[in-house]
Amino acid sequence: MVDEVVLLGFWPSSVGTRVKIALAEKGVEYPYREENLQDKSPLLLEMNPIHKKVPVLIHNGKPILESLIIVQYIDEIWKNKAPLLPSDPFQRAQARFWADYDDKKINHIILKRIILSSKGEEQEKAKKEFIEDLKVLERKLGDKSYFEGDNFGFVVVIFVPFYTWFDVVETFGNLSIEAECPKLIELVERCMQNESVAKSILDSPKIYDYILQMRKELGVD
Amino acid sequence: MVDEVVLLGFWPSSVGTRVKIALAEKGVEYPYREENLQDKSPLLLEMNPIHKKVPVLIHNGKPILESLIIVQYIDEIWKNKAPLLPSDPFQRAQARFWADYDDKKINHIILKRIILSSKGEEQEKAKKEFIEDLKVLERKLGDKSYFEGDNFGFVVVIFVPFYTWFDVVETFGNLSIEAECPKLIELVERCMQNESVAKSILDSPKIYDYILQMRKELGVD
Repeated sequence: MVDEVVLLGFWPSSVGTRVKIALAEKGVEYPYREENLQDKSPLLLEMNPIHKKVPVLIHNGKPILESLIIVQYIDEIWKNKAPLLPSDPFQRAQARFWADYDDKKINHIILKRIILSSKGEEQEKAKKEFIEDLKVLERKLGDKSYFEGDNFGFVVVIFVPFYTWFDVVETFGNLSIEAECPKLIELVERCMQNESVAKSILDSPKIYDYILQMRKELGVD
Repeated sequence: MVDEVVLLGFWPSSVGTRVKIALAEKGVEYPYREENLQDKSPLLLEMNPIHKKVPVLIHNGKPILESLIIVQYIDEIWKNKAPLLPSDPFQRAQARFWADYDDKKINHIILKRIILSSKGEEQEKAKKEFIEDLKVLERKLGDKSYFEGDNFGFVVVIFVPFYTWFDVVETFGNLSIEAECPKLIELVERCMQNESVAKSILDSPKIYDYILQMRKELGVD
């Protein structure tokens, strides 16, 4: 059977980029369908009736949901090329732990608190938290090439899409991520040499315009 | 090599109960160490320096963290007895989705909003949300014996520990879960026939006293 793969996404979504990178690593070709989140398609509502969110991977007509689960599924289905999760159960549990850490800490919630809030105490608190959470990753990375060691893997796929948001976080949050976490920036630059990342990652200036527009609509100075 | 297994926990924790059920399903014996969360042991801080939380499974000296990840690890290590996750990748992705749903929706956050808040609008809102989220599970269960079909599995292990909190939710929230979700209550009763659940599940009156004490300390009427 030829695999039928469709990806439903929304372009600024870094969780969607995780799925794009995983599919690119595996060499899977697919049509991508952009969703309008103000007017969700009947297909999205049918495929994800519980959360009504993207990304949704549709594989042979069946929906796979939630980016961490989708990337693991992709790794299990296309297992012969570019393995993402380690085969050892303890190392796999560790990879899942750090992917979960990324997902809970480095996400759109902290992003909104930094880039969509007026300057002030709340923003300062969010910046401090964000940098502290990144520094945990910086220490975890240490002198390794990737989180998992020498190999590009699951944790990097989950982490690296957030990189395109670094520019707006730095601009609107008035901070330097490189000054705080130089090894993470080196990691990202290393990942960008990888075609799967380079072709999937979001366009940073486009994100900047998108946020500028959102700030105007919300009346943030 | 003989497996050395230690579990660090805190008795009222339903996420810890998940791990106890999974280990009981696999027939794994282990010493259990109760943690004092006001004065965490050096072992807990050494094993979980990032979140400093329980449960922690220590297997041959190495820590496995986060209940969903721990239960998957247990299933991968002791794979020859009582499999918890389905072997088919799509069904496995679905089981992970529903376990994640449980984890995000039916947890101590919603619990606190119901049982530790004074009566009022906030409590009513939390009750409504809680029942709606449970009803999603009720519909998912449908007429099946377990979420996964005929077999006791991953999603049930993640869901059922919350059952001991139902009593306090009903008492302090003034609601009837059975009236709203009769099939979930039947599911729980079915699970309680299972020795792994019966011996792991928390003691409901003890939870009641614990919450009563907490409400007093917080000055909730």
